[in-house]
Amino acid sequence: MTDETDVFHIMYTCRAMRRLKPDPVPEAVLVKLIDAAHQGPTGSNRQNARWIVVRDARQRSRIAELHRSGADAYLAGTPAAQGMEKIRAAVAWQRDHFDQMPALIVASIALAQRPADSFVAGLGAGGSGWPGVQNLLLAARALGLGATITTFALRDRAALKSVLGLPDLVEPFAVLPVGYPRGRFGPLTRRPLNEVLRWDRW
Amino acid sequence: MTDETDVFHIMYTCRAMRRLKPDPVPEAVLVKLIDAAHQGPTGSNRQNARWIVVRDARQRSRIAELHRSGADAYLAGTPAAQGMEKIRAAVAWQRDHFDQMPALIVASIALAQRPADSFVAGLGAGGSGWPGVQNLLLAARALGLGATITTFALRDRAALKSVLGLPDLVEPFAVLPVGYPRGRFGPLTRRPLNEVLRWDRW
Repeated sequence: MTDETDVFHIMYTCRAMRRLKPDPVPEAVLVKLIDAAHQGPTGSNRQNARWIVVRDARQRSRIAELHRSGADAYLAGTPAAQGMEKIRAAVAWQRDHFDQMPALIVASIALAQRPADSFVAGLGAGGSGWPGVQNLLLAARALGLGATITTFALRDRAALKSVLGLPDLVEPFAVLPVGYPRGRFGPLTRRPLNEVLRWDRW
Repeated sequence: MTDETDVFHIMYTCRAMRRLKPDPVPEAVLVKLIDAAHQGPTGSNRQNARWIVVRDARQRSRIAELHRSGADAYLAGTPAAQGMEKIRAAVAWQRDHFDQMPALIVASIALAQRPADSFVAGLGAGGSGWPGVQNLLLAARALGLGATITTFALRDRAALKSVLGLPDLVEPFAVLPVGYPRGRFGPLTRRPLNEVLRWDRW
């Protein structure tokens, strides 16, 4: 181990790396990422997060097509102002290279039964999946891989579920392209902490 | 830095520590936890996760009361079988000591507008909050603190929002007791990876 794998160093330099090389990622490394994700907490330790690693070129191209539609809608609907230029450029680059990402990791939650169709039910259910995604992002960063959370391919949820052959009760919530980065890792930019932290009450 | 802060070591030993000591946690350490949480990714980098650190005894006692009702309902509704005995015992211990936890961290999402009241909208919105929670859990583990995700106090969401004075569009999704652990950190127990990982399709 080197300083490079210190958990705080990893967290503070875990940039959203959208520009990736097409070079394949060894299977053993992909397995390491999923194993890290699998360590994330889940409600009542149900371990109900599911991870599909998509390397097959035809499958990647189908998902890339869904991603493109969603990204186009996002870019059309998001104003170019307010410091969004860099994100917009990276999102557009990613859209145009999505089928060349060496691996797409689809994160899903396996539900025991059809949940209440409410915002708070979904927000709560995410607690069994999103923490594992953060483990995956940190593990990727530690192994020198770039990764980002995307959700554009989910805008046509039925089509994505059909491409992946997902059962009705398995709900995808993120698609993470993973590969070797073209750019460099570096510090994150964040607002001052006092804008997001309060003591005792709002 | 020591090996102790290696990101993989931290992830693989980040147990849900429910039994905590009442000893206070220094404010600088609590700030470190929230700063780590604040590094988590958010959709379009909106940085819309919000963190309330509750140390005030009266506030903790109000939240503990809400937590107790939710925990009681959970314990009454969860069968004691299927290897759940250890979790049940720890949940009961935590319920009975909740107001003695030195700090309760309430994680919320600040919404720009009232979202669609659907499961998938909530599942997606959680992607701007739960990854930060995982950063917080890992940071706590790295600093020798125990922490767990709880959601029992959210069962009466309106009451919790009222106790905290949360605006309508700020939605809490987790309450994390944080303190020095009574037990020891150790390896997680997880199902074999092949139960949660698939290649190319379901």
